[in-house]
Amino acid sequence: MRNRLRVLGIDPGLTRCGVGVVDVADDRTARLVHVGVIRSAADAPIEDRLATIARGLRAVIAEHTPDVVAVERVFAQNNRHSVMGTAQASGVALLVAREHGLAAATHTPSEVKAAVTGYGSADKLQVQTMVARILRLDELPTPADAADALALALCHAWRGAPAGSARGAAVLTPAQRAWAEAERRGRR
Amino acid sequence: MRNRLRVLGIDPGLTRCGVGVVDVADDRTARLVHVGVIRSAADAPIEDRLATIARGLRAVIAEHTPDVVAVERVFAQNNRHSVMGTAQASGVALLVAREHGLAAATHTPSEVKAAVTGYGSADKLQVQTMVARILRLDELPTPADAADALALALCHAWRGAPAGSARGAAVLTPAQRAWAEAERRGRR
Repeated sequence: MRNRLRVLGIDPGLTRCGVGVVDVADDRTARLVHVGVIRSAADAPIEDRLATIARGLRAVIAEHTPDVVAVERVFAQNNRHSVMGTAQASGVALLVAREHGLAAATHTPSEVKAAVTGYGSADKLQVQTMVARILRLDELPTPADAADALALALCHAWRGAPAGSARGAAVLTPAQRAWAEAERRGRR
Repeated sequence: MRNRLRVLGIDPGLTRCGVGVVDVADDRTARLVHVGVIRSAADAPIEDRLATIARGLRAVIAEHTPDVVAVERVFAQNNRHSVMGTAQASGVALLVAREHGLAAATHTPSEVKAAVTGYGSADKLQVQTMVARILRLDELPTPADAADALALALCHAWRGAPAGSARGAAVLTPAQRAWAEAERRGRR
């Protein structure tokens, strides 16, 4: 049996917090385990919304027992209106990971887009399309937050994995090849 | 015996998270219960830093059993460099409050300054000086994060309390009178 890494990706947000769990094998092939969105009501007190997110994340961790958690990194310059709530949700996500004894990592949106589409400025549809292709899904994962969470999990597994062996390279998807090439270019 | 409200004020931050607990009586007089700072190492992983803050806050809540928690509201435009970490810490603070079954509230820095100094743009020294005077401390509370946490707790108790009765008004400090007057002006 091949080794596999089970990654929980979290796209933090108060209204919709995307969660995606994937198994990624040594040869970089990936399989969908779980995808969903934790929602909290916009008119609920902020502490209740954060508690809803923490509860939802703990339930996903308990059910799917990931090896590692990847959380999207939030920047102050993105989308002023909701960025503080997003940062608060990301703090809760990192805390919940840590309190389950899981390693946590953060990746920027452009790292995630580059990992799955080969292009750091890819749009939402490109990300959804590539996530569906990589995981061999019949439909695009929706909403975008759920697709982003899966992309984040894939990004984490691939970035953390050793550089593709000859055997690994043979089974890379187009996006994986693009990513591996971009990575090689980056190292030059 | 007079009724009193025990408030935990939290000035969120990754490097220094200020915590202050005060008892505020019906007549608006206040007493220091606890003041401190939860520190986390700047070179530690973000999830460890957030877990350190959560652990420190839970210890303060367990020891001092506050009735309510007040957390400083964070804005995206303040201090770009550290604002994301501050927001993540505030998310953790609100979650910890909620998970202890405590009501939580947020107040803006200018609300807090106005509450204790009568002036929404007061500087750090003015806040520290007024907090020391209100709580009858022999020394200024330091660092500023600790003073801010106490100011936040006082602000919350006073804003939440019913408007000063004749009896209450007799024992107001100068800052409390200034605040009550500002509040009355605001209602006109």
